[in-house]
Amino acid sequence: MFEFGEERFFTSAITVDNVIFGFDDGEIKILLIKRGTTPFKGKWALPGDFAHPDEDLDFASARVLKELTGLSNVYLEQVQSFGHPNRHPDGRVITVAYFSLIKISDFALQASGWASGAQWMSLKDIPELAFDHNEILDACFSKLQRRVRVQPIGFELLPPKFTLTDLQQLYHAILLPPPDKSIDKRNFRKKILAMDLLIDLNELQEGVAHRPAKLYRFDPSKYRKLVESGFSFEV
Amino acid sequence: MFEFGEERFFTSAITVDNVIFGFDDGEIKILLIKRGTTPFKGKWALPGDFAHPDEDLDFASARVLKELTGLSNVYLEQVQSFGHPNRHPDGRVITVAYFSLIKISDFALQASGWASGAQWMSLKDIPELAFDHNEILDACFSKLQRRVRVQPIGFELLPPKFTLTDLQQLYHAILLPPPDKSIDKRNFRKKILAMDLLIDLNELQEGVAHRPAKLYRFDPSKYRKLVESGFSFEV
Repeated sequence: MFEFGEERFFTSAITVDNVIFGFDDGEIKILLIKRGTTPFKGKWALPGDFAHPDEDLDFASARVLKELTGLSNVYLEQVQSFGHPNRHPDGRVITVAYFSLIKISDFALQASGWASGAQWMSLKDIPELAFDHNEILDACFSKLQRRVRVQPIGFELLPPKFTLTDLQQLYHAILLPPPDKSIDKRNFRKKILAMDLLIDLNELQEGVAHRPAKLYRFDPSKYRKLVESGFSFEV
Repeated sequence: MFEFGEERFFTSAITVDNVIFGFDDGEIKILLIKRGTTPFKGKWALPGDFAHPDEDLDFASARVLKELTGLSNVYLEQVQSFGHPNRHPDGRVITVAYFSLIKISDFALQASGWASGAQWMSLKDIPELAFDHNEILDACFSKLQRRVRVQPIGFELLPPKFTLTDLQQLYHAILLPPPDKSIDKRNFRKKILAMDLLIDLNELQEGVAHRPAKLYRFDPSKYRKLVESGFSFEV
């Protein structure tokens, strides 16, 4: 079965790690777990697990997400693999990093054996994480920053009905523009509305102190038409 | 050292596979090897190898490239990991796919123990490859198509001095536009020159049958300035 000596390479383990992004209170948040087992017991970490022998990588990542959040059918994208020889104290462990985007309003934490606690943390308050998870988080957030400019995935983070201000605040929270490059409200609205991706629901916000704003919904079929006609999403 | 039962996960192997792109004769070419060992002995495949116990993934990929081509310091980018449980007949093998861009003019094949033959093949003539390598090639080519539109990496495939026609043919070969969306020569030149990334060498082509065209060189420092001033590369 093996070429001579090849079996010495079959001593590694594969894990998946998920950077789960949410948007709440004008901020990007990440769902972290407190590790219940060694190594790094008690440290905050990205949710992840060993890929089981019969699991494809995407499947393993979706399983971790489902076990922790109860959610399936969410946006999940493979970002990068990390394989420094010393990244895991138990041996050679390659991890495949994914990010997912969830609507915090849909979210209910599941009781899960492998995490003694789970918590949303603001991007700006991320502590030192287990393993190389800070580096993984940085890589996934950079990917999200690039991705939202060219694909309308930001909507995955918003509730189904949102205002244009919600959308602008979301982009602000992801792109983190320096003060002199802040997103211009009027240009942003013009750009978004010109792509004709939103459905005006003819509804207004309720229960707000200020003048209620119009509510919109994102229409994926309009996006498909935009792409088919040779135009592209760009913010 | 291990949590109970964890050692059962340390039975996988990690490989790297390289999609090596070149540009020649108006076409994108890929460097393939003929496998000299089982499995898939005698089949064409992407060059790759097991990651050694002390190697980071990027390092392993660079080593494979160096062993095969003699080249280092070339553009090398991790694209995606492939981990279907049945993708390798010898056991669980996760492969991390990279693409690299080389100037075919720089290239000289190295004698290499693990490949009984190596050959550039046109993208349109790719045979059925070993393992899931056709799928890996497709993923890497799609990534290249997206990447060249937003980053000036295409220049890695051209000789140091090139004409605007060379550059346009390169973009045509990568983007493969349908006939009705073919790259417009005049617009393309205008767009490229407007970004001010090229140095006019004040030299003309030599030994060509048609009227010799001007030669240019790409200037990476001009690109850095473009990015710093808030503009972006876009073709």
